[in-house]
Amino acid sequence: MIVKGEGREVTQDLETPDDVAEVANVHETVDTGPVRVPGSVALNTDVVRRALLGRWSDIRTKSRALAARPEMQRIEGQSMEDHRARVLEQMHLLVEDGQVLRAFPERLGGDNDAGGNIAGFEELVLADPSLQIKSGVQWGLFGSAVLHLGTEKHQDRFLPGIMSLDVPGAFAMTEIGHGSDVASIGTTATYDASTQEFVIHTPFKGAWKEFLGNAARDGIAATVFAQLITQGVNHGVHCFYVPIRDENGEFLPGIGGEDDGLKGGLNGIDNGRLHFSHVRIPRDNLLNRYGDVAEDGSYTSSIASPGRRFFTMLGTLVQGRVSLDGAATTASALGLTIAIRYGNQRRQFNAASETDEEVLLDYQKHQRRLLPRLAQTYAHTFAHDTLLTKFDEVFSGRADTDDDRQDLETLAAALKPLSTWHALDTLQECREACGGAGFMNGNRFTSLYADLDVYVTFEGDNNVLLQLVAKRLLTDFSSKFRKADSGALARYVVAQAADRAYHGSGLRTLGQTLGDFGSTARSVGQLRETAVQRELLTDRVETMIENIAQELRPASKRSKKEAADLFNSQQTALIEAARAHGELLQWEAFTAAVEKIQDASTRTVLTWLRDLFGLSVIEKHLAWYLMNGRLSTQRAEAVSAYINRLVARLRPYAVQLVDAFGFEEAHLRAPIATDGERQRQDEARAYYAALRESGDAPVDEKVLRAREKAAKKQSR
Amino acid sequence: MIVKGEGREVTQDLETPDDVAEVANVHETVDTGPVRVPGSVALNTDVVRRALLGRWSDIRTKSRALAARPEMQRIEGQSMEDHRARVLEQMHLLVEDGQVLRAFPERLGGDNDAGGNIAGFEELVLADPSLQIKSGVQWGLFGSAVLHLGTEKHQDRFLPGIMSLDVPGAFAMTEIGHGSDVASIGTTATYDASTQEFVIHTPFKGAWKEFLGNAARDGIAATVFAQLITQGVNHGVHCFYVPIRDENGEFLPGIGGEDDGLKGGLNGIDNGRLHFSHVRIPRDNLLNRYGDVAEDGSYTSSIASPGRRFFTMLGTLVQGRVSLDGAATTASALGLTIAIRYGNQRRQFNAASETDEEVLLDYQKHQRRLLPRLAQTYAHTFAHDTLLTKFDEVFSGRADTDDDRQDLETLAAALKPLSTWHALDTLQECREACGGAGFMNGNRFTSLYADLDVYVTFEGDNNVLLQLVAKRLLTDFSSKFRKADSGALARYVVAQAADRAYHGSGLRTLGQTLGDFGSTARSVGQLRETAVQRELLTDRVETMIENIAQELRPASKRSKKEAADLFNSQQTALIEAARAHGELLQWEAFTAAVEKIQDASTRTVLTWLRDLFGLSVIEKHLAWYLMNGRLSTQRAEAVSAYINRLVARLRPYAVQLVDAFGFEEAHLRAPIATDGERQRQDEARAYYAALRESGDAPVDEKVLRAREKAAKKQSR
Repeated sequence: MIVKGEGREVTQDLETPDDVAEVANVHETVDTGPVRVPGSVALNTDVVRRALLGRWSDIRTKSRALAARPEMQRIEGQSMEDHRARVLEQMHLLVEDGQVLRAFPERLGGDNDAGGNIAGFEELVLADPSLQIKSGVQWGLFGSAVLHLGTEKHQDRFLPGIMSLDVPGAFAMTEIGHGSDVASIGTTATYDASTQEFVIHTPFKGAWKEFLGNAARDGIAATVFAQLITQGVNHGVHCFYVPIRDENGEFLPGIGGEDDGLKGGLNGIDNGRLHFSHVRIPRDNLLNRYGDVAEDGSYTSSIASPGRRFFTMLGTLVQGRVSLDGAATTASALGLTIAIRYGNQRRQFNAASETDEEVLLDYQKHQRRLLPRLAQTYAHTFAHDTLLTKFDEVFSGRADTDDDRQDLETLAAALKPLSTWHALDTLQECREACGGAGFMNGNRFTSLYADLDVYVTFEGDNNVLLQLVAKRLLTDFSSKFRKADSGALARYVVAQAADRAYHGSGLRTLGQTLGDFGSTARSVGQLRETAVQRELLTDRVETMIENIAQELRPASKRSKKEAADLFNSQQTALIEAARAHGELLQWEAFTAAVEKIQDASTRTVLTWLRDLFGLSVIEKHLAWYLMNGRLSTQRAEAVSAYINRLVARLRPYAVQLVDAFGFEEAHLRAPIATDGERQRQDEARAYYAALRESGDAPVDEKVLRAREKAAKKQSR
Repeated sequence: MIVKGEGREVTQDLETPDDVAEVANVHETVDTGPVRVPGSVALNTDVVRRALLGRWSDIRTKSRALAARPEMQRIEGQSMEDHRARVLEQMHLLVEDGQVLRAFPERLGGDNDAGGNIAGFEELVLADPSLQIKSGVQWGLFGSAVLHLGTEKHQDRFLPGIMSLDVPGAFAMTEIGHGSDVASIGTTATYDASTQEFVIHTPFKGAWKEFLGNAARDGIAATVFAQLITQGVNHGVHCFYVPIRDENGEFLPGIGGEDDGLKGGLNGIDNGRLHFSHVRIPRDNLLNRYGDVAEDGSYTSSIASPGRRFFTMLGTLVQGRVSLDGAATTASALGLTIAIRYGNQRRQFNAASETDEEVLLDYQKHQRRLLPRLAQTYAHTFAHDTLLTKFDEVFSGRADTDDDRQDLETLAAALKPLSTWHALDTLQECREACGGAGFMNGNRFTSLYADLDVYVTFEGDNNVLLQLVAKRLLTDFSSKFRKADSGALARYVVAQAADRAYHGSGLRTLGQTLGDFGSTARSVGQLRETAVQRELLTDRVETMIENIAQELRPASKRSKKEAADLFNSQQTALIEAARAHGELLQWEAFTAAVEKIQDASTRTVLTWLRDLFGLSVIEKHLAWYLMNGRLSTQRAEAVSAYINRLVARLRPYAVQLVDAFGFEEAHLRAPIATDGERQRQDEARAYYAALRESGDAPVDEKVLRAREKAAKKQSR
């Protein structure tokens, strides 16, 4: 069977028995393109599209239709003021449409659909990341604080205005002095029993609330995080509902602020600062789900430990991280769709033929630049669907234990850093792969990059999040993470308490088994075995965590300062281990998704793509595998050689694989993603053909000189 | 001697004999900060500043004074139109100032100072990258084409208007269809002997001139590259001086164009497209230095080979690449100055003490993020000074052989990719290291990133340039590059033809010697030996090139298509080898600069920084060193451990090392690079201290619970 690939016709080997030998002898035999053997592989784009859209495909499709409406889309080059005004307008259109209200209680007109809400919300990044994030501020942060930190009275009182956008609001958590370290914020909320009010106060400049969406212009209320002080005791950070502006848009007495002005991106959002001078709010405005103050000022909480209470409150806000993971992955997919379509048309330099130039995507380096990132984007997409499923289970209450919430937070903290960094890396590589055309604002990359830049540090700085993950891995090191045979992802998502018990098959054994690979199983073909990839990736996480645990052991016997120094000496290693854990989760999600594909040949192509992802991760960490004796030198060399083979094998499917993301022209909106380049080439080709036929074509001086040389030779 | 570092007081070990043991036993002993031993090291910032400013320090200082003038600086957030108008205004100020005319002939009012001109020009990036690049278009490309491709008559006729900016002009080389592949452009210049005119023509859409600065708005002339056709022969690409707009700013007959509109950055420049419909220009407008057409249409050239002629013409334009290398490095230095100053003040989380939080730059990860990039920026700075020296020698005519020109081109092609990618990587890491504050436009990172983004693909796409370098390395493989003992950089810069002869000490021997390191010289202390670093870096380049040459050997016996496929299979490896070559050149330049430092303790600190650069490069390629038997597992592990040790050792000097770049506040213009964060912390600290003294401080609930627990225990 012949598959017509975009750009050139190819036959692909379904199972090439010579692969193993070929890769093993990579220094003797050179792969010069797809091997033509009988039995080629057809990729069913529809099957892949369904897999990529995942569990909430209907909602995503509806939200994409919304994002395809011109009035929802960004106008590039608008001034900051115009952009802000447009996004606010679009927010009202979102309310009209109703989709953004899915998360809210049914009694207030919502759908009580936490997972579906996030799925739909993420797709708004296709219209304008500013719209996505400003919606996130209004309904995902400001609204969610009321929903999750307040009780029914707050929901009934405040949510209708928030949902309808009658009350745009700011989520006032971060301060100038404290971003990631929320527990140390300086704003105080001191209870005054004599008037039954809280006094919200900003005691110094560093405690100004900072970077708040809706604060500079639109917000008329805010959910303010402050140290709750009553009866002389500081009960730690709590959240308060505080009106900030009057009906004329003027700050209420005691409240002041500044506009953050121009940012690196997301300029459709009016970020700003707020400060409070002894601002009094009713006692009732404490969002009191996890802690309350009675009329007399006595404090009560359902959670005895102040530390656990703090993390429980913050945990309700995990959806920000979840949605950034999804939106960033969508942006990567969009960028790759544009760059791969262009790379499949654009030609430059004619090395191989006398007439036509080479298509960019036929160059090895171009394949190496784009296809591993495509594989990674697939991995992120599948991992995100799993994360969102977990989120939905927790927030629907179907699986909402403390362990579930902790698992959800760890998953989000592991995946959000990887996907947001990946989006920047991918958008930049796409932009460069499209040359000067990639730098034109109209081709999307630079604009998306600028907007997504801040995703890597907001809703949890990526490096801080990865440290949280690593700490969790360290904590769990001696218990549940010993159980290596069911997969790391499964432990978060489907495992029950009973499954989490200690199992004899500990990681030491696994480590030893893997340590033998170099000598016992030399065939490079193994690299494409699912089990081998799984073990290599799993072993790395566990070994790294084990090593760090070993290094940190003396800490318990030392002073606080010495323990901190010791921990600091392992910081880089901790972050690296957490990253390895995230990569493993993604690989497992990719593998699980591929295994669910029914269509055999589609599954084959996606398995190649999964292999490309797995081997790219292993290649990135090759030094570790070599130093730790997990891969022999010979096997390590085969990794890169096999990646080169895989990208060439996947190249004919590249356009189909990005088409499977399912974006329409209204989402791409990039001139270079259309057929323009091909048309221009056809025109040029026709011009030269006509010139040749006319007999008027000038002779090339080089040809002339060659002819003269030949003539001279003959005359001698 | 005690050195007062910024942020904390330290003593540094001049020579620590325990370093070797410490690193070797890294898994047993943990480095918990600077070792306090007698003999500490003082860094003399002035000495370093002089070294960094390099050969053209006076000119750089003057140009920086220019860049410090408010009217020369970018106003962030301007509309594209306003930004364009402002930059044009600034260009007129540059003419008034006179510095930008240094490159032009003395008889026309210039200084005939090629190197000094570039040095001064590069520093304009501190004012506004748009100003730098638009100046580059006017005087560096448009003007240089007339200067270097024209003859005296053209210089006398056209340069005065170009120099005075009476004639703003576009450099019309790139086409929609052809960027990097200039030889394939479609625009034609056909000689009509009957009227003694050239007819400039755009035969199809793909041949429209594209991305030209000055084309959308300001340009009234252009240097147009086109296929020169006369008497039925195409003599290849030549350059023509073509008026494009009349005194009212309207296109002249036959000429049309479009505005490129908004770009990812550099929006102070009016990039646009141009096309020509049978536009007639006098025969004299051919810039005829390397090829001329007589009245009767007969073609003559001083360079017989059309290929060599083409590359000679293009070679005269190398200064674009040279200046991007310098400007990108200056931008990296600026970004690091801002981020390191902030990282030295900003505190977050209090792991080590009960009261004060940790300064960011005391975290290992923060050191790891910023200090290796600082070391790399030093390496780029020193390498650039060498490149510019070479440029000056060639363009002053002092050393202007074909070999010299080729060497210059190879050097520029090796260094520009590395420094421009480094700038993006560094600015992004700096932005993230400063969190939300880094995303604020006013703190410079995002704006500089957006502007410098295109540096990696213009004036030669980085990947294309690296392939040119690799091809040169392959060509030279069997001759001059065998001579490994004098350093790779020296071969380009100081070596004479005689020195270039074959030497017996070939690279195979070297490779074998290095291959033995793993077993014969185990002491990790060797890693900081200059000779060891040199050999590791040199050997890698040579071995990679040797391996590629081996792979490509069969190409000569194959068809053009097969040879191209074979070459393509090595494309990734070629680019990687060229990158390794560039890294070696930088390391050599860094080492040479350090060796010139007289002050012993300053030299010691800079040697640590050089080691950090060298070992960071080796760490990045660790898998290669392991797979190729150049580093034992033990030695490889020591690389990362020693880097951790080096960043901790260099940390107290971090602020001095960026201060040595010599930027003033008027160059930094970033609120976070001032003392604001420290002042806010002082204010917060004073507030808490006063509160504690007042006796009104609330008790922390955690403390209360601990007390209750203790009381209960006692009462039992």
